[in-house]
Amino acid sequence: MVILALAGAAAFGNVFPITIAIVFLLAILTFSYQQTIHAYPGGGGAYIVSRDNLGEIPAQVAGASLLMDYVLTVAVSVSSGVAQIVSAYPGLVPFRVGIAVGLVILIMVINLRGVKESGKAFALPTYFFLVMVFVTLGLGFFKMVTGSLGTVVDPPQDMVVQLAQPLTLFLILRAFASGTTALTGVEAISNGITAFKKPASKNAGVTLIWMAVILGTSLLGISYMSQYIRALPSEQETVISQLARTVYDNRGILYLAMISSTTVILVMAANTAFADFPRLSAIQATDGFLPRQLAYRGSRLVYSRGIMALTAIACLLIVYFDASVTRLIPLYAIGVFLSFTLSQTGMARRWWKSGHLEPGTEIKERGSTLVHDPRWNYKMIVNSIGAVMTAVVTVIFAITKFHDGAYVVIIIIPILVVIFLMIRRHYVSVAKALSLDKYGAQPRNQRHRVILLISGVHRGSLAGLRYARNLSDDITAVHVSIDPDEAARIEKKWETWGDGIRLVILDSPYRTFLEPLLEYIEDLDDRRQPNEVITVVVPQFVSRKFWTNVLHSRTAESLRKILLNRSEVVVTEVPYQVD
Amino acid sequence: MVILALAGAAAFGNVFPITIAIVFLLAILTFSYQQTIHAYPGGGGAYIVSRDNLGEIPAQVAGASLLMDYVLTVAVSVSSGVAQIVSAYPGLVPFRVGIAVGLVILIMVINLRGVKESGKAFALPTYFFLVMVFVTLGLGFFKMVTGSLGTVVDPPQDMVVQLAQPLTLFLILRAFASGTTALTGVEAISNGITAFKKPASKNAGVTLIWMAVILGTSLLGISYMSQYIRALPSEQETVISQLARTVYDNRGILYLAMISSTTVILVMAANTAFADFPRLSAIQATDGFLPRQLAYRGSRLVYSRGIMALTAIACLLIVYFDASVTRLIPLYAIGVFLSFTLSQTGMARRWWKSGHLEPGTEIKERGSTLVHDPRWNYKMIVNSIGAVMTAVVTVIFAITKFHDGAYVVIIIIPILVVIFLMIRRHYVSVAKALSLDKYGAQPRNQRHRVILLISGVHRGSLAGLRYARNLSDDITAVHVSIDPDEAARIEKKWETWGDGIRLVILDSPYRTFLEPLLEYIEDLDDRRQPNEVITVVVPQFVSRKFWTNVLHSRTAESLRKILLNRSEVVVTEVPYQVD
Repeated sequence: MVILALAGAAAFGNVFPITIAIVFLLAILTFSYQQTIHAYPGGGGAYIVSRDNLGEIPAQVAGASLLMDYVLTVAVSVSSGVAQIVSAYPGLVPFRVGIAVGLVILIMVINLRGVKESGKAFALPTYFFLVMVFVTLGLGFFKMVTGSLGTVVDPPQDMVVQLAQPLTLFLILRAFASGTTALTGVEAISNGITAFKKPASKNAGVTLIWMAVILGTSLLGISYMSQYIRALPSEQETVISQLARTVYDNRGILYLAMISSTTVILVMAANTAFADFPRLSAIQATDGFLPRQLAYRGSRLVYSRGIMALTAIACLLIVYFDASVTRLIPLYAIGVFLSFTLSQTGMARRWWKSGHLEPGTEIKERGSTLVHDPRWNYKMIVNSIGAVMTAVVTVIFAITKFHDGAYVVIIIIPILVVIFLMIRRHYVSVAKALSLDKYGAQPRNQRHRVILLISGVHRGSLAGLRYARNLSDDITAVHVSIDPDEAARIEKKWETWGDGIRLVILDSPYRTFLEPLLEYIEDLDDRRQPNEVITVVVPQFVSRKFWTNVLHSRTAESLRKILLNRSEVVVTEVPYQVD
Repeated sequence: MVILALAGAAAFGNVFPITIAIVFLLAILTFSYQQTIHAYPGGGGAYIVSRDNLGEIPAQVAGASLLMDYVLTVAVSVSSGVAQIVSAYPGLVPFRVGIAVGLVILIMVINLRGVKESGKAFALPTYFFLVMVFVTLGLGFFKMVTGSLGTVVDPPQDMVVQLAQPLTLFLILRAFASGTTALTGVEAISNGITAFKKPASKNAGVTLIWMAVILGTSLLGISYMSQYIRALPSEQETVISQLARTVYDNRGILYLAMISSTTVILVMAANTAFADFPRLSAIQATDGFLPRQLAYRGSRLVYSRGIMALTAIACLLIVYFDASVTRLIPLYAIGVFLSFTLSQTGMARRWWKSGHLEPGTEIKERGSTLVHDPRWNYKMIVNSIGAVMTAVVTVIFAITKFHDGAYVVIIIIPILVVIFLMIRRHYVSVAKALSLDKYGAQPRNQRHRVILLISGVHRGSLAGLRYARNLSDDITAVHVSIDPDEAARIEKKWETWGDGIRLVILDSPYRTFLEPLLEYIEDLDDRRQPNEVITVVVPQFVSRKFWTNVLHSRTAESLRKILLNRSEVVVTEVPYQVD
C-alpha cells in the first residue's frame, strides 16, 4: 500500500490519464510476477532470477540496483512521511531534514534491537491506512455525487514551479511502478516468499493479485479525485493532505487520522528496506560477491554493521537532498526499472529454455527446478512484454532524468558491479590457493617453543605459566623492563615461583614496550629450526567492569596485529579474572 | 621566548607599570626555580616536587593542572599564532577557527610520525625570532630617539571594547607569567632537565637565567614601545603587528618577517605541549594514577592515542571559544599558577625538612636525595615568597575570572583528581588480589581440550589442525553449517584429511554463526572436569592487502570478546598466509 502514499507524497495532481497507464503497467507486472512466483517457490527476486537465467554480470547489475534502491527506499519513504507531517503542521517545515534523520535513526535503533516477526506488528497500521483511504475516497465520491465537493482551499503556493516541469509526470509514473514492485509490493513478495504458509506459491500469488487490485483501485480513486478538487503537486503540502482536508472540509480528527496513517505506513516502508537489505546481501555473500561474513546474517555483529551502513548512507542522502521527495525520486527510478527488466528478461529466457526441454526431464538450478512447461510460449510472451515495457521506462528515465540525479545511479551501479566481481575474484583465488589438490601430507611440527610474557610475578603470570606448561616443555618467560630495580625484584621472585623456567629480562631504556619484545621474537623467528612453531602466551587481566579494563593494556592484540604476517607464530591470550 | 609572542597576541597596550610587576614576578620565579633545579637534578616539575614533599593529593592536583594546561597551551598558542596571521591578512579573519584547527591537526600529524631530537629543529626559528624582536626594538628606539616614531596608523576598531574591561590587564599578567613558567620557559626546563649536558643542573640553571634576562628585556622593550606608539589590545590585530607596522612604516618584508617568526614560534609552543603531555602522563602512570600503558610512552600505539586525545580536546576548545585568545586565556591562568604554588610550597617544605636533618645523613626520596643544607633558611624564604605570590595570583584569577571561564577549570581539576585517585585505588586492589602472599602452589592442569574451528577443508584448516596437534591429543574439529550440502561435502573431505580427528557439525538454521558455537563451548565448559583447560583454535586467513582482509571475518576476536570472562577458556588464532 506504501506506493499509494509514496505517490501522494510525490505529488500527482491532474495526471489522471497517466495514472491509467500506470495501472496498466501494474497489471502487466502483476501477471509476469505471478509467473515468477510459481517458477521460484523458494523466492525469486530479480537477483536470483537473473543469476539463474542470465549469468553473473546481469545478476550483479540486478544486485547493485536493488541494494541501492533499498537505501533510496529508506531516504524516500522517510522523506515522504515527513512531507505528510509538515503538510499537517506547516510550522515544522524548517526542521524536516532533522525530523527525517531522527526517524531513520529511530528505525535503525529498533532494528538493531532486533524485531522478530515484525510482520504482525505491521498488519494493524496497514489495515488502518486502507480503511482510511477507502473512507476518504467513499466520502469524497459521495460529496462529488451530491455536488458538495469543492476544490482545494488556499492551495500551496509553490505549485506553479512544479507544473513548469512536465517531466514530473514521468517521475510520478516511476514512483508508482517502483513503489509497486521493487520493495513492498510485488518484488518484496517475490523475495520473501518463504514467509508464506504452504502452499507458499499459491498464497503468495493470491496476495499479489489482491494487492494489485486494492492498489489499482485506490490509485485510480485518489488520482481521479485529486484532479477533480484541483490538488496540485507541491513541496509544501502533499496531495494526500490537500485531498483529505478538502474532503473533510477542515483539518479535524479524520484529516489527522488519514495523514498519520499515511506517515506510519511510509515509515514502515523504510523499515522493510532494513529487512530486505541484509536478506539480499546474505544471498550475494553466499555466492561470493559480498564479504562472506554477511552470509551469516543472523550474526548480531555483522548485521549491526550492515544496518548502520544503510542508516548512514540514507541519512547522507536525506541531508544532501534536503529531505525533498521530488529531488530523491529521480535516483530511485532507474535502479528499480533496471532490476525489473533483468528479472523479466530472465524469466522470458527461462520459458524459452523450458520450451526446448524434453518433457519429463528436469534441470536443477540453484534457485529452482526447470521442467518442461507446455504453455511456455504464452508465458514467455507475458514476461517479454513486461521486459520490454520496463526496459523502455528505464531508458526514458535514464535520458530524461539524467541531469536531475539519475547520472549518480548510472555511475554507481557499474562501480558496485566491478567491486562485486573483484570480491568474487578474490574468493576464487583464495580458494584455489587453499585447495588441497596437489597437496602432499605435511610433516607434523617437531618443536613447539613457548614464550611467556610477564609484567610481574603475580597470580596472573602464574596462570599464564600453568597454561604454557600445557602447551610445551620448551618455555621461556620474558619481561620487558623500564626500571632496573623492578626487574631485579621480579628476577628474585621468579626464583621462588618460576618453577625452574628460564626468565629473560629485556631492557627498554627508551621506555618502549612492544619494540624490544618484537625484536626478541623476530630474532627467535629468524634462527628457528624448520618445523618449529612459536607461541607467545600473554596473561591478560580481565575485569567485569568496562572502565577498569581500559586501565590494562591489551598487549596480545597489539602483538597479534604486528605478527599476523609471520607464519607459524601464534599469539595466545590467557585471560585471568580478578573480581 | 614564546611568552613574548603570546603576550603580543594577548594584547597589552598601555600597561607598562603592570609589565614591570610582571618582570619582578619573573625574577622571583627564576630565583626559586633555580633552587628547584639544583635540588632535583633528575628533573623537578611541579608534579614531582609536590609528590615528594606534599603528598598524594597535592601532587595529583598539580598533575591535573599541568595536564589541563598542556591542552590549553595547544589551544592558546595556536590561536595566538592564527591571530598573527589574520593581523597580517585581515581577509582571513572569517576562517581563523578553520586555520587554527588545521594547524593543530598538522602538528598532530608531525608528532604522530615521530619527531626525534626536535630540539635542534627548533633552534633556528627561535634565534630568528629573537633577532627579529631585537631588530624591531632597536629600529624602534632609534626612531624614538630621532623623533621619527609616530603612533599606530589606522588602529583596530574593536579596541574600545577591550579597554572597557580593566581585567584584561590581569589577564596579560597571567598570560606572561604562565607562558614564562609553565610550559616553554621555567617549568619546561625543570621537567626536561635530563636533556641537558652534564653538569645538567648547572647548565640548566644558566639557561634559565639567560632566558629570564632575554625575556625580561624583550618584554620591557615591547611593552614600553607599544605604549609609546599607542598600540591597543584588539581581537582583530595583535599588538606585535601594530608595533611592527608602525616601526617599519608599512607592511613590507621586515613586517612579514616579524609576524611570520612570531607565528612559527607560537605554533612551536603548541608542539612542546605535545612532548610535555606524554612525558608527565608517563610519570603519573608509573605512579599508578593514570592507565599504566602510558608509562611506556615510547610505545607507538599508546603515544598516538595520547596525542590524538590532546588534539581532539584542543580542537574542541578552539572551536568552542572561536579561536579567541582573549576568551581562552582565563581558563589557562588558574592551572598554571596553582601548579606554581604547589611546587613552591613543596620546595619550601623541603628546605624546612633539610634544615632539620642531621648534617651528614641523607634521605633518598623518589625524585631526589635530601641532605642537610646549611643555607636552608634563606632558600626556604625565597620559595615561600614565590609560593605566596603565586597563591595570591591564583586566588585573584579564580575570583575575578570566574565567570569568564575560570569556573570550568575549578570544576575540572577536582574531577580529574578524583579520577586519578580512583585509578590508583583500582591498581592497588588488583595488586592485592594478585599478590602471591598466602598463595599455595596450584596443581598443574591435568587435561587440555582443544576445539578446532573449521570453515571448510583446505590448507588453512590443516594448518590449524597441525597447530592443534602440538597443543594436545584431545582435539575436536567443529564446523558451523548454514548449508547441509556444504556440510556433507566437508564431512566427506574430512575423512581424507582429518587425520582421524572427530568432526562435529553444528547446524545453524537461522544462519547465525557465533551463537551455535558459543552454545557448544559453554556446554563443554559447564561439564568439564576440574583442572581442565579448553583452547579454541581458529585458523585465520591473513592477507597482506588491507581490503582483502575485510573480506574475511575475524572470528577469533569476536569469540574472545565474549569468552573473556570465562576462566580457563583460551581462544587462539592461527594465522595462515596465502599471498
